[in-house]
Amino acid sequence: MADTLTKLAKIIEERKDQDPSTSYVALLQSSGLNKILEKVGEEAIETILAARDIQQGDDKSKLIYETADLWFHTLVMLSKFELGPQEVLDELEKRFGTSGLDEKASRGTG
Amino acid sequence: MADTLTKLAKIIEERKDQDPSTSYVALLQSSGLNKILEKVGEEAIETILAARDIQQGDDKSKLIYETADLWFHTLVMLSKFELGPQEVLDELEKRFGTSGLDEKASRGTG
Amino acid sequence: MADTLTKLAKIIEERKDQDPSTSYVALLQSSGLNKILEKVGEEAIETILAARDIQQGDDKSKLIYETADLWFHTLVMLSKFELGPQEVLDELEKRFGTSGLDEKASRGTG
Amino acid sequence: MADTLTKLAKIIEERKDQDPSTSYVALLQSSGLNKILEKVGEEAIETILAARDIQQGDDKSKLIYETADLWFHTLVMLSKFELGPQEVLDELEKRFGTSGLDEKASRGTG
Repeated sequence: MADTLTKLAKIIEERKDQDPSTSYVALLQSSGLNKILEKVGEEAIETILAARDIQQGDDKSKLIYETADLWFHTLVMLSKFELGPQEVLDELEKRFGTSGLDEKASRGTG
Repeated sequence: MADTLTKLAKIIEERKDQDPSTSYVALLQSSGLNKILEKVGEEAIETILAARDIQQGDDKSKLIYETADLWFHTLVMLSKFELGPQEVLDELEKRFGTSGLDEKASRGTG
Repeated sequence: MADTLTKLAKIIEERKDQDPSTSYVALLQSSGLNKILEKVGEEAIETILAARDIQQGDDKSKLIYETADLWFHTLVMLSKFELGPQEVLDELEKRFGTSGLDEKASRGTG
Repeated sequence: MADTLTKLAKIIEERKDQDPSTSYVALLQSSGLNKILEKVGEEAIETILAARDIQQGDDKSKLIYETADLWFHTLVMLSKFELGPQEVLDELEKRFGTSGLDEKASRGTG
């Protein structure tokens, strides 16, 4: 079963070589690595500011929105190097794997 | 079936109120929002630099490692606001939903 | 004698309340603090990337250009809080003051 | 007359090749470009957060402190490429020069 990140990575791969004038992903890819990395940095800043905005009374939707932007642009960056979300998830599993398995066992059927 | 991010978010929730001297997640949570946001920013910078290092001949493992760090710290940040990865994935689904649905349909049973 | 930063801060103050459609400084100020802080963050990222570009053979002019952008936007930020470059320079003097004075003395005429 | 930034740049140059165990500048320089750029990025984030802290009631001293940190680390970065503050100030003069001269003239004695 394909989850959201895998599905999204597939869409990014498909759009990679499309016309930059009709696809944002294609536009980013054709703009080069620095442009993609600038976007990763910008979205991180906007995420940080959105988190502080919640402290001052904003609702949480902007933080969700900006975090989605940040994750999306990291996927575009990974795609530039022929990498996808699975490699990152595997790394996270490796770090938290034991706890994860323990926790999985405790939930019974998984 | 719980995927990696959901599982990791559960671990973060569980460790949230543990002893800051034995759990990094508890330490981050007890250090306050600014400390967590600084980490999100730092990991974004380290991700950007790791991507540039690949261009100069480094292997891709550092980029995977730093991106995992970045995603992990965004999960800790979300947790600070009682949010989890599902809200972010839902937002991504909403944006790429049409393609997603098309693709889901083509896979038949999902 | 007014130095460059003081002069620039004065220009920023003067343009602060001008028409946002004709002055970039006025536009930034009227866009609110978050917009200014996003620019500080963006320029920091672009400075970092320009430094890495030199390593890969680019000339140094882009780094100078991006650092100028970064300093300029920090001055706009300071101005938002009725602060100027002198407060920052005073802080730097305080930290490096002893060495500075020693060094000044050693140069004789100061 | 040497101003603060020029004086500070001179100190940075002098300490560049000192013992990394006794000089922070020497430590940074010996740690390589990525370490310096990480610090530039971190200080930008801390500056942004300090600015938001003022909005929530903090005094302005932390913003001055963090901006000083940011400027200091950009000087260390410039020094890595045999550049100094004058090149950045010249770039700023070039951009704001006309206004600067106009404004200087209007102030009469300067």
